[in-house]
Amino acid sequence: MDWLSQIKKFIGKEFKLSPSPFMAWLSPVVLKAEKGSLEFEYIVRSEWLNPIGNLHGGVIAAIIDDTIGATMFTFNEDNFHITLNNSIDYLSIAKNGDKIIASTKVIKKGRQFVLAECELWNEKKTRLIAKGTSNLFKTSVNTK
Amino acid sequence: MDWLSQIKKFIGKEFKLSPSPFMAWLSPVVLKAEKGSLEFEYIVRSEWLNPIGNLHGGVIAAIIDDTIGATMFTFNEDNFHITLNNSIDYLSIAKNGDKIIASTKVIKKGRQFVLAECELWNEKKTRLIAKGTSNLFKTSVNTK
Amino acid sequence: MDWLSQIKKFIGKEFKLSPSPFMAWLSPVVLKAEKGSLEFEYIVRSEWLNPIGNLHGGVIAAIIDDTIGATMFTFNEDNFHITLNNSIDYLSIAKNGDKIIASTKVIKKGRQFVLAECELWNEKKTRLIAKGTSNLFKTSVNTK
Amino acid sequence: MDWLSQIKKFIGKEFKLSPSPFMAWLSPVVLKAEKGSLEFEYIVRSEWLNPIGNLHGGVIAAIIDDTIGATMFTFNEDNFHITLNNSIDYLSIAKNGDKIIASTKVIKKGRQFVLAECELWNEKKTRLIAKGTSNLFKTSVNTK
Repeated sequence: MDWLSQIKKFIGKEFKLSPSPFMAWLSPVVLKAEKGSLEFEYIVRSEWLNPIGNLHGGVIAAIIDDTIGATMFTFNEDNFHITLNNSIDYLSIAKNGDKIIASTKVIKKGRQFVLAECELWNEKKTRLIAKGTSNLFKTSVNTK
Repeated sequence: MDWLSQIKKFIGKEFKLSPSPFMAWLSPVVLKAEKGSLEFEYIVRSEWLNPIGNLHGGVIAAIIDDTIGATMFTFNEDNFHITLNNSIDYLSIAKNGDKIIASTKVIKKGRQFVLAECELWNEKKTRLIAKGTSNLFKTSVNTK
Repeated sequence: MDWLSQIKKFIGKEFKLSPSPFMAWLSPVVLKAEKGSLEFEYIVRSEWLNPIGNLHGGVIAAIIDDTIGATMFTFNEDNFHITLNNSIDYLSIAKNGDKIIASTKVIKKGRQFVLAECELWNEKKTRLIAKGTSNLFKTSVNTK
Repeated sequence: MDWLSQIKKFIGKEFKLSPSPFMAWLSPVVLKAEKGSLEFEYIVRSEWLNPIGNLHGGVIAAIIDDTIGATMFTFNEDNFHITLNNSIDYLSIAKNGDKIIASTKVIKKGRQFVLAECELWNEKKTRLIAKGTSNLFKTSVNTK
């Protein structure tokens, strides 16, 4: 299936087509979509905060995991990719109402394995909030 | 503040006292609480699922990050601990409606740094779903 | 091939049978060997030190990677396992001449993937020096 | 101390000035040195090989850890930086006699914490062999 074209239709808009209920909950707006890379924007909501009023590290981890997984669809393969691991470094904070941008990149796409990264930025992309890396494995599960 | 006693009051019940809005959204039931270790139970909800109907890796990451952070409060220190990094390995799946158990352990508590782990299990603790490790750093931010 | 029996013959002695030149350079003494777990002892040598006279983190990483890889042989499978990633947390130091003990454990052995850990301890196993985790993948390369 | 100028004197030559015995054993040739980034070249030696004749993952980890640590000296601070963790992804192989290039980059330099990466490439930098990331912490230990 041509997932990439489907995602591109939502550039500038909330991505409503996701087969993932959790991505729907995160409500990303698509900024860019190309083969091997996505850029999604989010608005930090009050239920995303930690005990001291900053964006919760768990939500950061969730966004990074979700955008990396979504990036696998930009290859227009119908095989589902499972995430083997995810390693995240936390660098800065975000506050309620802030726009934040998740930007993904594929480091290596092998026949079976993919290594991909996600950087989470503030709205102007001047300050890195977190960076995560995942190994993924192409399964025979069909997502079409 | 005696956070540990506060948490213990919720054993067998949903933890309603959290100062974290995101933890409230995750809605953990406290199973065990002691110095350096927590056990929280969750029920997998439909909005926690990924495109193929399994518990989303992002929610797994969020639960692991949240329970490790919460474990810092069991030391009854009022300093907020920031999470420097989180490394997660994904091992198995969970389905909508499943009960899952997050169990944390502190590997080392130094003067400034803490290394802690979280294992996410199925309800009977016979199958490991994921395992995560974080380095945390004790800040001067007061959470009292 | 019955690798496990071969390794067990070296309990209490330096392991001389390794097909790995780098393991030979590390010169481990076998303390324990069983299915899914190895315990190797090393003496910290002067060329293993960092700029401030402690055991170099790079040597720690090398020992952890090597012992985890060696642990795959205890399953007596002839397939070579490649290491996909390795995540290490550094907790304490060791000095020139110290004996240190690497102890490995398999967290999950799937059909294709293995998750394994290694703890590096001081001689009395009272102080954890470092802990590492790797995902490995069973290849079709035969090591017999 | 002006470490950066000292390192630059060795561009094109083996770095003989290291206060680290283990770096001396690794015998890097300095290709580039600037504030926050180093490029070191190595020749894969026979004692660096694994059981199937490829560059051992442990040596890869050691090189990544060592070059990231050395990069801290390019800031010309006399405080020793300890490495808190190191997360490595393995992507490709190298063979005996191959030249390989480690290239480091600082992602964030905070007041106390540094996040840095190292990519390990083949000689022509057309194929990524491994990539590692570390969190480091500036201590009060003086390395002058």
